Amino acid sequence: MKSIQKVVLIGSGNVATQLGLALDEKGFDILQVYSQTHAHANELAKKLNSLPTNQINKIRPDADIYIISVSDNAISEVAKALPHENIFLVHTSGSTPMDIFKNNWENYGVLYPLQTLSKSVKCNFSNIPLCIEASDKDHLNELIKLGKKISSKVLHINSEQREYLHIAAVFASNFTNHMYAIASDILENKNISFEILHPLLDETLRKAKRNNPVEVQTGPAMRGDKLILDKHLERLSSLPAYQKIYNFISQSIYNAKKH
Amino acid sequence: MKSIQKVVLIGSGNVATQLGLALDEKGFDILQVYSQTHAHANELAKKLNSLPTNQINKIRPDADIYIISVSDNAISEVAKALPHENIFLVHTSGSTPMDIFKNNWENYGVLYPLQTLSKSVKCNFSNIPLCIEASDKDHLNELIKLGKKISSKVLHINSEQREYLHIAAVFASNFTNHMYAIASDILENKNISFEILHPLLDETLRKAKRNNPVEVQTGPAMRGDKLILDKHLERLSSLPAYQKIYNFISQSIYNAKKH
Repeated sequence: MKSIQKVVLIGSGNVATQLGLALDEKGFDILQVYSQTHAHANELAKKLNSLPTNQINKIRPDADIYIISVSDNAISEVAKALPHENIFLVHTSGSTPMDIFKNNWENYGVLYPLQTLSKSVKCNFSNIPLCIEASDKDHLNELIKLGKKISSKVLHINSEQREYLHIAAVFASNFTNHMYAIASDILENKNISFEILHPLLDETLRKAKRNNPVEVQTGPAMRGDKLILDKHLERLSSLPAYQKIYNFISQSIYNAKKH
Repeated sequence: MKSIQKVVLIGSGNVATQLGLALDEKGFDILQVYSQTHAHANELAKKLNSLPTNQINKIRPDADIYIISVSDNAISEVAKALPHENIFLVHTSGSTPMDIFKNNWENYGVLYPLQTLSKSVKCNFSNIPLCIEASDKDHLNELIKLGKKISSKVLHINSEQREYLHIAAVFASNFTNHMYAIASDILENKNISFEILHPLLDETLRKAKRNNPVEVQTGPAMRGDKLILDKHLERLSSLPAYQKIYNFISQSIYNAKKH
Protein backbone atom coordinates (compact mmCIF):
# COMPACT_ATOMS: atom_id res chain seq x y z
CA MET A 1 0.00 0.00 0.00
CA LYS A 2 1.09 3.59 -0.49
CA SER A 3 1.98 5.91 2.38
CA ILE A 4 -0.90 7.49 4.24
CA GLN A 5 -1.37 11.14 3.30
CA LYS A 6 -5.09 11.85 2.90
CA VAL A 7 -7.29 11.50 5.98
CA VAL A 8 -11.02 11.54 6.64
CA LEU A 9 -12.00 12.16 10.25
CA ILE A 10 -15.25 10.59 11.39
CA GLY A 11 -16.22 12.25 14.66
CA SER A 12 -15.60 15.68 16.12
CA GLY A 13 -15.10 15.05 19.83
CA ASN A 14 -12.03 15.35 22.05
CA VAL A 15 -9.94 12.64 20.38
CA ALA A 16 -10.93 13.60 16.79
CA THR A 17 -10.08 17.23 17.54
CA GLN A 18 -6.65 16.67 19.07
CA LEU A 19 -5.67 13.92 16.64
CA GLY A 20 -6.84 16.09 13.73
CA LEU A 21 -4.79 19.05 14.95
CA ALA A 22 -1.69 16.87 15.34
CA LEU A 23 -2.08 15.32 11.88
CA ASP A 24 -2.74 18.68 10.26
CA GLU A 25 0.34 20.16 11.93
CA LYS A 26 2.50 17.37 10.53
CA GLY A 27 1.31 17.95 6.98
CA PHE A 28 -1.37 15.29 6.52
CA ASP A 29 -4.31 16.34 4.34
CA ILE A 30 -7.52 16.26 6.32
CA LEU A 31 -9.92 15.91 3.39
CA GLN A 32 -13.14 15.92 5.36
CA VAL A 33 -14.64 15.96 8.84
CA TYR A 34 -17.89 14.10 9.48
CA SER A 35 -20.21 14.58 12.43
CA GLN A 36 -23.93 13.85 12.84
CA THR A 37 -24.28 17.43 14.00
CA HIS A 38 -23.32 19.85 11.25
CA ALA A 39 -22.21 22.59 13.66
CA HIS A 40 -19.72 20.18 15.26
CA ALA A 41 -18.32 19.03 11.92
CA ASN A 42 -18.06 22.64 10.88
CA GLU A 43 -16.27 23.74 14.05
CA LEU A 44 -13.54 21.12 13.72
CA ALA A 45 -13.25 21.41 9.91
CA LYS A 46 -12.54 25.14 10.32
CA LYS A 47 -9.64 24.43 12.67
CA LEU A 48 -8.17 21.99 10.16
CA ASN A 49 -8.81 23.93 6.93
CA SER A 50 -10.99 21.00 5.97
CA LEU A 51 -14.56 20.46 4.77
CA PRO A 52 -17.44 19.48 7.01
CA THR A 53 -20.30 17.10 6.34
CA ASN A 54 -23.12 15.65 8.40
CA GLN A 55 -24.22 13.25 5.66
CA ILE A 56 -22.42 9.95 5.91
CA ASN A 57 -23.16 9.06 2.27
CA LYS A 58 -21.27 12.20 1.21
CA ILE A 59 -18.02 10.96 2.67
CA ARG A 60 -15.33 10.95 -0.02
CA PRO A 61 -13.95 7.69 -1.42
CA ASP A 62 -10.35 8.80 -1.96
CA ALA A 63 -8.74 9.03 1.50
CA ASP A 64 -5.87 6.74 2.51
CA ILE A 65 -7.34 6.29 5.97
CA TYR A 66 -10.71 6.79 7.67
CA ILE A 67 -10.34 7.48 11.38
CA ILE A 68 -13.47 6.76 13.42
CA SER A 69 -13.46 8.68 16.72
CA VAL A 70 -16.99 8.30 18.00
CA SER A 71 -18.33 6.81 21.24
CA ASP A 72 -17.60 3.09 21.62
CA ASN A 73 -21.14 1.90 21.08
CA ALA A 74 -21.47 3.87 17.82
CA ILE A 75 -18.29 2.65 16.06
CA SER A 76 -19.81 -0.42 14.48
CA GLU A 77 -22.94 1.35 13.28
CA VAL A 78 -21.02 4.30 11.78
CA ALA A 79 -18.61 1.94 10.01
CA LYS A 80 -21.48 0.00 8.44
CA ALA A 81 -23.08 3.22 7.19
CA LEU A 82 -19.97 4.23 5.24
CA PRO A 83 -20.69 4.33 1.48
CA HIS A 84 -17.36 2.78 0.39
CA GLU A 85 -15.67 -0.60 0.36
CA ASN A 86 -11.97 -1.42 0.22
CA ILE A 87 -11.02 1.52 2.42
CA PHE A 88 -8.61 1.47 5.36
CA LEU A 89 -10.60 1.98 8.55
CA VAL A 90 -9.31 2.52 12.08
CA HIS A 91 -10.94 3.41 15.39
CA THR A 92 -9.38 5.22 18.36
CA SER A 93 -11.06 3.43 21.26
CA GLY A 94 -9.29 1.85 24.23
CA SER A 95 -11.98 -0.69 24.97
CA THR A 96 -13.18 -1.83 21.56
CA PRO A 97 -11.47 -4.86 20.01
CA MET A 98 -10.07 -4.45 16.51
CA ASP A 99 -12.19 -7.44 15.41
CA ILE A 100 -15.28 -5.29 15.47
CA PHE A 101 -14.36 -4.59 11.80
CA LYS A 102 -13.52 -8.17 10.88
CA ASN A 103 -16.75 -9.32 9.23
CA ASN A 104 -17.28 -6.32 6.98
CA TRP A 105 -13.83 -5.02 6.12
CA GLU A 106 -10.55 -6.23 4.83
CA ASN A 107 -8.15 -3.46 5.90
CA TYR A 108 -8.56 -2.10 9.37
CA GLY A 109 -6.76 -1.19 12.55
CA VAL A 110 -6.68 0.75 15.81
CA LEU A 111 -4.93 3.99 16.75
CA TYR A 112 -5.51 4.58 20.47
CA PRO A 113 -3.92 7.68 22.04
CA LEU A 114 -3.42 6.98 25.74
CA GLN A 115 -4.17 10.40 27.17
CA THR A 116 -7.02 12.40 28.66
CA LEU A 117 -7.89 14.86 25.90
CA SER A 118 -10.26 17.78 25.69
CA LYS A 119 -11.43 19.80 22.72
CA SER A 120 -10.35 23.16 24.02
CA VAL A 121 -6.90 22.48 25.45
CA LYS A 122 -4.28 21.99 22.73
CA CYS A 123 -2.06 19.10 23.79
CA ASN A 124 1.48 18.17 22.92
CA PHE A 125 0.81 15.03 20.94
CA SER A 126 4.47 14.11 20.59
CA ASN A 127 4.52 12.88 24.18
CA ILE A 128 1.36 10.76 23.98
CA PRO A 129 1.72 6.96 23.72
CA LEU A 130 -0.04 5.74 20.56
CA CYS A 131 -1.23 2.16 20.78
CA ILE A 132 -1.40 0.65 17.33
CA GLU A 133 -2.81 -2.57 15.89
CA ALA A 134 -3.76 -3.53 12.33
CA SER A 135 -5.33 -6.31 10.28
CA ASP A 136 -2.09 -7.13 8.43
CA LYS A 137 1.60 -6.31 8.38
CA ASP A 138 1.44 -3.71 5.61
CA HIS A 139 -1.26 -1.68 7.31
CA LEU A 140 0.49 -2.06 10.65
CA ASN A 141 3.67 -0.61 9.14
CA GLU A 142 1.78 2.28 7.56
CA LEU A 143 0.00 3.05 10.84
CA ILE A 144 3.31 2.95 12.69
CA LYS A 145 4.79 5.37 10.14
CA LEU A 146 1.83 7.70 10.60
CA GLY A 147 2.07 7.35 14.39
CA LYS A 148 5.77 8.17 14.45
CA LYS A 149 5.16 11.42 12.60
CA ILE A 150 2.95 12.71 15.41
CA SER A 151 4.34 10.95 18.49
CA SER A 152 7.66 9.69 19.81
CA LYS A 153 5.91 6.83 21.63
CA VAL A 154 4.36 4.39 19.20
CA LEU A 155 3.56 0.94 20.59
CA HIS A 156 2.23 -2.22 19.02
CA ILE A 157 -0.46 -3.31 21.47
CA ASN A 158 -3.00 -6.07 20.81
CA SER A 159 -6.72 -5.78 21.57
CA GLU A 160 -6.57 -7.69 24.86
CA GLN A 161 -3.61 -5.65 26.12
CA ARG A 162 -5.33 -2.44 25.06
CA GLU A 163 -8.43 -3.32 27.01
CA TYR A 164 -6.45 -3.88 30.21
CA LEU A 165 -4.48 -0.73 29.49
CA HIS A 166 -7.75 1.16 29.44
CA ILE A 167 -8.80 -0.41 32.74
CA ALA A 168 -5.43 0.50 34.28
CA ALA A 169 -5.88 4.05 32.97
CA VAL A 170 -9.27 4.28 34.68
CA PHE A 171 -7.64 3.38 38.02
CA ALA A 172 -4.59 5.59 37.55
CA SER A 173 -6.35 8.62 36.09
CA ASN A 174 -10.13 8.70 36.64
CA PHE A 175 -10.04 7.15 40.11
CA THR A 176 -7.01 9.20 41.12
CA ASN A 177 -8.82 12.37 40.09
CA HIS A 178 -11.79 11.27 42.20
CA MET A 179 -9.43 11.00 45.20
CA TYR A 180 -8.23 14.55 44.46
CA ALA A 181 -11.87 15.67 44.24
CA ILE A 182 -12.74 14.16 47.63
CA ALA A 183 -9.66 15.74 49.21
CA SER A 184 -10.59 19.09 47.69
CA ASP A 185 -14.13 18.84 49.05
CA ILE A 186 -12.96 17.87 52.56
CA LEU A 187 -10.60 20.87 52.61
CA GLU A 188 -13.23 23.26 51.28
CA ASN A 189 -15.48 22.29 54.20
CA LYS A 190 -12.74 23.53 56.55
CA ASN A 191 -11.88 26.65 54.54
CA ILE A 192 -8.54 25.35 53.34
CA SER A 193 -7.38 25.74 49.74
CA PHE A 194 -6.66 22.55 47.74
CA GLU A 195 -3.43 24.27 46.66
CA ILE A 196 -1.83 23.41 49.99
CA LEU A 197 -1.76 19.79 48.78
CA HIS A 198 -0.02 20.52 45.46
CA PRO A 199 3.56 19.82 46.63
CA LEU A 200 2.39 16.56 48.20
CA LEU A 201 0.64 15.51 44.98
CA ASP A 202 3.75 16.32 42.92
CA GLU A 203 5.94 14.28 45.22
CA THR A 204 3.51 11.35 45.33
CA LEU A 205 3.53 11.11 41.55
CA ARG A 206 7.28 11.64 41.30
CA LYS A 207 7.87 8.74 43.72
CA ALA A 208 5.43 6.44 41.92
CA LYS A 209 7.16 7.15 38.60
CA ARG A 210 10.66 6.55 39.93
CA ASN A 211 9.80 3.37 41.80
CA ASN A 212 7.25 0.61 41.69
CA PRO A 213 4.22 2.35 43.30
CA VAL A 214 3.52 -0.77 45.38
CA GLU A 215 6.87 -0.28 47.08
CA VAL A 216 6.42 3.37 48.01
CA GLN A 217 2.98 2.99 49.59
CA THR A 218 2.81 4.93 52.87
CA GLY A 219 0.12 6.13 55.27
CA PRO A 220 -1.87 4.85 58.24
CA ALA A 221 -3.45 1.91 56.37
CA MET A 222 -0.04 0.69 55.20
CA ARG A 223 1.35 0.97 58.73
CA GLY A 224 -1.76 -0.71 60.15
CA ASP A 225 -2.08 2.33 62.44
CA LYS A 226 -5.49 1.58 63.97
CA LEU A 227 -5.40 4.66 66.22
CA ILE A 228 -5.30 7.04 63.24
CA LEU A 229 -7.60 4.96 61.06
CA ASP A 230 -10.30 4.97 63.76
CA LYS A 231 -9.85 8.66 64.40
CA HIS A 232 -10.15 9.50 60.68
CA LEU A 233 -13.25 7.30 60.31
CA GLU A 234 -14.82 9.01 63.29
CA ARG A 235 -14.09 12.48 61.84
CA LEU A 236 -15.66 11.40 58.55
CA SER A 237 -18.91 10.33 60.22
CA SER A 238 -20.59 13.50 58.96
CA LEU A 239 -19.48 12.59 55.40
CA PRO A 240 -20.65 8.94 55.21
CA ALA A 241 -19.87 8.47 51.49
CA TYR A 242 -16.24 9.47 52.11
CA GLN A 243 -16.10 7.43 55.31
CA LYS A 244 -17.10 4.33 53.34
CA ILE A 245 -14.41 4.95 50.70
CA TYR A 246 -11.80 5.67 53.37
CA ASN A 247 -12.55 2.38 55.07
CA PHE A 248 -12.72 0.40 51.85
CA ILE A 249 -9.47 1.62 50.30
CA SER A 250 -7.63 1.40 53.62
CA GLN A 251 -8.58 -2.25 53.82
CA SER A 252 -7.44 -2.78 50.26
CA ILE A 253 -4.05 -1.20 51.02
CA TYR A 254 -3.68 -3.33 54.13
CA ASN A 255 -4.66 -6.51 52.29
CA ALA A 256 -2.29 -5.80 49.38
CA LYS A 257 0.52 -5.54 51.91
CA LYS A 258 -0.16 -9.00 53.30
CA HIS A 259 0.16 -10.75 49.94
CA MET B 1 10.81 35.19 74.29
CA LYS B 2 14.10 35.22 72.41
CA SER B 3 14.49 33.96 68.85
CA ILE B 4 14.79 30.24 68.40
CA GLN B 5 18.35 29.15 67.67
CA LYS B 6 19.11 26.01 69.67
CA VAL B 7 17.12 22.87 68.86
CA VAL B 8 16.77 19.43 70.41
CA LEU B 9 15.31 16.78 68.12
CA ILE B 10 13.34 14.03 69.80
CA GLY B 11 12.95 11.23 67.28
CA SER B 12 15.06 10.04 64.36
CA GLY B 13 12.52 8.95 61.75
CA ASN B 14 11.62 10.42 58.35
CA VAL B 15 10.27 13.75 59.61
CA ALA B 16 12.99 14.26 62.25
CA THR B 17 15.64 13.53 59.63
CA GLN B 18 14.39 15.89 56.93
CA LEU B 19 13.40 18.66 59.35
CA GLY B 20 16.78 18.32 61.08
CA LEU B 21 18.64 18.59 57.77
CA ALA B 22 16.63 21.68 56.77
CA LEU B 23 17.20 23.40 60.15
CA ASP B 24 20.90 22.54 60.13
CA GLU B 25 21.27 23.91 56.61
CA LYS B 26 19.70 27.20 57.66
CA GLY B 27 22.09 27.65 60.57
CA PHE B 28 20.09 26.43 63.54
CA ASP B 29 22.13 24.64 66.23
CA ILE B 30 20.95 21.08 66.62
CA LEU B 31 22.22 20.49 70.16
CA GLN B 32 21.14 16.92 70.53
CA VAL B 33 19.24 14.06 68.85
CA TYR B 34 17.30 11.63 71.00
CA SER B 35 16.08 8.18 69.99
CA GLN B 36 15.22 5.11 72.05
CA THR B 37 17.61 3.21 69.80
CA HIS B 38 21.13 4.53 70.14
CA ALA B 39 22.15 3.53 66.60
CA HIS B 40 19.28 5.61 65.18
CA ALA B 41 20.12 8.66 67.32
CA ASN B 42 23.73 8.26 66.28
CA GLU B 43 22.97 7.97 62.57
CA LEU B 44 20.96 11.20 62.49
CA ALA B 45 23.26 13.09 64.89
CA LYS B 46 26.17 12.37 62.56
CA LYS B 47 24.36 13.94 59.61
CA LEU B 48 23.67 17.06 61.69
CA ASN B 49 27.03 17.40 63.44
CA SER B 50 25.08 16.90 66.62
CA LEU B 51 25.24 14.62 69.67
CA PRO B 52 23.16 11.49 70.09
CA THR B 53 21.49 10.11 73.20
CA ASN B 54 19.15 7.25 73.93
CA GLN B 55 18.60 8.30 77.54
CA ILE B 56 15.71 10.70 77.86
CA ASN B 57 16.93 12.00 81.24
CA LYS B 58 20.16 13.12 79.57
CA ILE B 59 18.36 15.55 77.31
CA ARG B 60 19.84 19.03 77.74
CA PRO B 61 17.86 21.81 79.44
CA ASP B 62 19.13 24.74 77.36
CA ALA B 63 17.47 24.44 73.93
CA ASP B 64 15.04 27.09 72.68
CA ILE B 65 12.76 24.41 71.23
CA TYR B 66 12.22 20.66 71.66
CA ILE B 67 10.79 19.08 68.52
CA ILE B 68 9.04 15.75 69.10
CA SER B 69 8.87 13.68 65.91
CA VAL B 70 7.81 10.26 67.10
CA SER B 71 4.80 8.10 66.20
CA ASP B 72 1.48 9.67 67.19
CA ASN B 73 0.73 7.31 70.04
CA ALA B 74 4.14 7.90 71.66
CA ILE B 75 4.10 11.74 71.69
CA SER B 76 2.36 12.13 75.04
CA GLU B 77 4.46 9.53 76.80
CA VAL B 78 7.77 10.90 75.49
CA ALA B 79 6.79 14.45 76.49
CA LYS B 80 5.97 13.37 80.04
CA ALA B 81 9.35 11.60 80.34
CA LEU B 82 11.29 14.78 79.58
CA PRO B 83 13.38 15.86 82.59
CA HIS B 84 12.72 19.62 82.24
CA GLU B 85 9.92 22.09 82.85
CA ASN B 86 9.35 25.49 81.26
CA ILE B 87 10.63 24.38 77.90
CA PHE B 88 9.04 25.08 74.51
CA LEU B 89 7.71 21.83 73.14
CA VAL B 90 6.28 21.13 69.68
CA HIS B 91 5.20 18.00 67.83
CA THR B 92 5.13 17.40 64.07
CA SER B 93 2.03 15.23 63.74
CA GLY B 94 -0.88 15.83 61.39
CA SER B 95 -3.45 14.01 63.46
CA THR B 96 -2.57 14.90 67.05
CA PRO B 97 -4.26 17.96 68.56
CA MET B 98 -2.02 20.61 70.10
CA ASP B 99 -3.95 20.25 73.38
CA ILE B 100 -2.21 16.96 74.05
CA PHE B 101 0.38 19.19 75.83
CA LYS B 102 -2.11 21.40 77.64
CA ASN B 103 -2.23 19.79 81.08
CA ASN B 104 1.51 19.45 81.63
CA TRP B 105 3.12 22.32 79.76
CA GLU B 106 2.82 26.03 79.41
CA ASN B 107 4.58 26.71 76.10
CA TYR B 108 3.86 24.39 73.26
CA GLY B 109 2.93 24.17 69.62
CA VAL B 110 2.79 22.18 66.41
CA LEU B 111 5.01 22.23 63.32
CA TYR B 112 3.48 19.89 60.74
CA PRO B 113 5.26 19.55 57.37
CA LEU B 114 2.67 18.50 54.80
CA GLN B 115 4.75 16.19 52.65
CA THR B 116 5.59 12.52 52.26
CA LEU B 117 9.16 12.29 53.58
CA SER B 118 11.69 9.52 53.71
CA LYS B 119 14.99 9.28 55.55
CA SER B 120 17.12 8.56 52.55
CA VAL B 121 15.80 11.02 49.94
CA LYS B 122 16.90 14.60 50.63
CA CYS B 123 13.91 16.85 49.97
CA ASN B 124 13.64 20.49 49.06
CA PHE B 125 12.06 21.78 52.27
CA SER B 126 11.53 25.29 50.92
CA ASN B 127 8.55 24.07 48.91
CA ILE B 128 6.85 22.15 51.74
CA PRO B 129 3.80 23.73 53.43
CA LEU B 130 4.48 24.07 57.17
CA CYS B 131 1.32 24.06 59.28
CA ILE B 132 1.94 25.95 62.49
CA GLU B 133 0.00 26.40 65.73
CA ALA B 134 1.11 27.51 69.21
CA SER B 135 -0.12 27.98 72.76
CA ASP B 136 0.23 31.79 72.67
CA LYS B 137 0.97 34.63 70.31
CA ASP B 138 4.67 34.97 71.20
CA HIS B 139 5.41 31.32 70.55
CA LEU B 140 3.30 31.38 67.41
CA ASN B 141 5.38 34.29 66.10
CA GLU B 142 8.65 32.55 66.93
CA LEU B 143 7.50 29.35 65.25
CA ILE B 144 6.44 31.31 62.17
CA LYS B 145 9.88 32.96 62.08
CA LEU B 146 11.55 29.56 62.32
CA GLY B 147 9.20 28.15 59.68
CA LYS B 148 9.90 30.99 57.25
CA LYS B 149 13.63 30.30 57.42
CA ILE B 150 13.15 26.79 56.06
CA SER B 151 10.02 27.09 53.91
CA SER B 152 8.29 29.64 51.72
CA LYS B 153 4.88 28.23 52.67
CA VAL B 154 4.13 28.79 56.34
CA LEU B 155 0.47 28.55 57.35
CA HIS B 156 -1.36 29.12 60.61
CA ILE B 157 -3.62 26.06 60.83
CA ASN B 158 -5.61 25.08 63.92
CA SER B 159 -5.83 21.52 65.27
CA GLU B 160 -9.20 20.74 63.74
CA GLN B 161 -8.14 22.03 60.32
CA ARG B 162 -4.88 20.09 60.56
CA GLU B 163 -6.72 16.88 61.25
CA TYR B 164 -8.91 17.26 58.17
CA LEU B 165 -5.85 18.28 56.18
CA HIS B 166 -4.26 14.98 57.15
CA ILE B 167 -7.40 13.08 56.11
CA ALA B 168 -7.43 14.94 52.77
CA ALA B 169 -3.75 14.07 52.33
CA VAL B 170 -4.53 10.38 52.87
CA PHE B 171 -7.08 10.52 50.04
CA ALA B 172 -4.93 12.61 47.70
CA SER B 173 -1.61 10.88 48.33
CA ASN B 174 -1.90 7.43 49.97
CA PHE B 175 -5.08 6.42 48.16
CA THR B 176 -3.88 7.88 44.87
CA ASN B 177 -0.70 5.85 45.16
CA HIS B 178 -2.80 2.75 45.78
CA MET B 179 -4.63 3.46 42.50
CA TYR B 180 -1.23 3.70 40.76
CA ALA B 181 -0.22 0.40 42.39
CA ILE B 182 -3.35 -1.39 41.16
CA ALA B 183 -2.84 0.00 37.64
CA SER B 184 0.78 -1.12 37.70
CA ASP B 185 -0.23 -4.62 38.79
CA ILE B 186 -2.92 -4.93 36.11
CA LEU B 187 -0.40 -3.90 33.43
CA GLU B 188 2.30 -6.23 34.73
CA ASN B 189 -0.13 -9.14 34.33
CA LYS B 190 -0.34 -8.26 30.62
CA ASN B 191 3.38 -7.61 30.16
CA ILE B 192 2.97 -3.85 29.77
CA SER B 193 5.28 -1.38 31.51
CA PHE B 194 3.71 1.09 33.97
CA GLU B 195 5.78 3.76 32.19
CA ILE B 196 3.25 3.87 29.38
CA LEU B 197 0.88 5.57 31.82
CA HIS B 198 3.33 8.30 32.90
CA PRO B 199 2.14 11.00 30.43
CA LEU B 200 -1.46 10.31 31.44
CA LEU B 201 -0.60 10.61 35.14
CA ASP B 202 1.24 13.90 34.54
CA GLU B 203 -1.70 15.33 32.64
CA THR B 204 -4.25 14.12 35.20
CA LEU B 205 -2.38 15.92 37.98
CA ARG B 206 -1.77 19.02 35.88
CA LYS B 207 -5.49 19.32 35.15
CA ALA B 208 -6.48 18.78 38.78
CA LYS B 209 -4.04 21.51 39.87
CA ARG B 210 -5.23 24.03 37.29
CA ASN B 211 -8.93 23.44 37.88
CA ASN B 212 -11.21 22.18 40.59
CA PRO B 213 -10.68 18.38 40.30
CA VAL B 214 -14.44 17.83 40.62
CA GLU B 215 -14.91 19.72 37.37
CA VAL B 216 -12.35 17.80 35.32
CA GLN B 217 -13.58 14.32 36.24
CA THR B 218 -13.74 12.10 33.14
CA GLY B 219 -14.08 8.39 32.38
CA PRO B 220 -16.80 5.78 31.93
CA ALA B 221 -18.26 6.19 35.44
CA MET B 222 -18.60 9.95 34.97
CA ARG B 223 -20.28 9.45 31.58
CA GLY B 224 -22.49 6.71 33.03
CA ASP B 225 -21.19 4.48 30.22
CA LYS B 226 -22.72 1.17 31.34
CA LEU B 227 -21.35 -0.71 28.30
CA ILE B 228 -17.74 0.00 29.28
CA LEU B 229 -18.32 -0.33 33.01
CA ASP B 230 -19.82 -3.80 32.58
CA LYS B 231 -17.05 -4.85 30.20
CA HIS B 232 -14.35 -3.69 32.62
CA LEU B 233 -16.02 -5.44 35.56
CA GLU B 234 -16.23 -8.63 33.53
CA ARG B 235 -12.52 -8.41 32.60
CA LEU B 236 -11.65 -7.92 36.26
CA SER B 237 -13.49 -11.06 37.35
CA SER B 238 -10.17 -12.88 37.72
CA LEU B 239 -8.98 -10.07 40.03
CA PRO B 240 -11.94 -9.86 42.46
CA ALA B 241 -10.30 -7.38 44.87
CA TYR B 242 -9.75 -4.92 42.01
CA GLN B 243 -13.20 -5.62 40.61
CA LYS B 244 -14.73 -4.62 43.94
CA ILE B 245 -12.76 -1.36 44.05
CA TYR B 246 -13.58 -0.60 40.43
CA ASN B 247 -17.28 -0.98 41.12
CA PHE B 248 -17.18 0.93 44.39
CA ILE B 249 -15.28 3.98 43.15
CA SER B 250 -17.23 4.09 39.89
CA GLN B 251 -20.44 4.31 41.93
CA SER B 252 -18.91 7.03 44.05
CA ILE B 253 -17.95 9.06 40.95
CA TYR B 254 -21.43 8.62 39.52
CA ASN B 255 -23.10 9.60 42.79
CA ALA B 256 -20.89 12.66 43.23
CA LYS B 257 -22.01 13.80 39.79
CA LYS B 258 -25.68 13.66 40.73
CA HIS B 259 -25.27 15.99 43.73
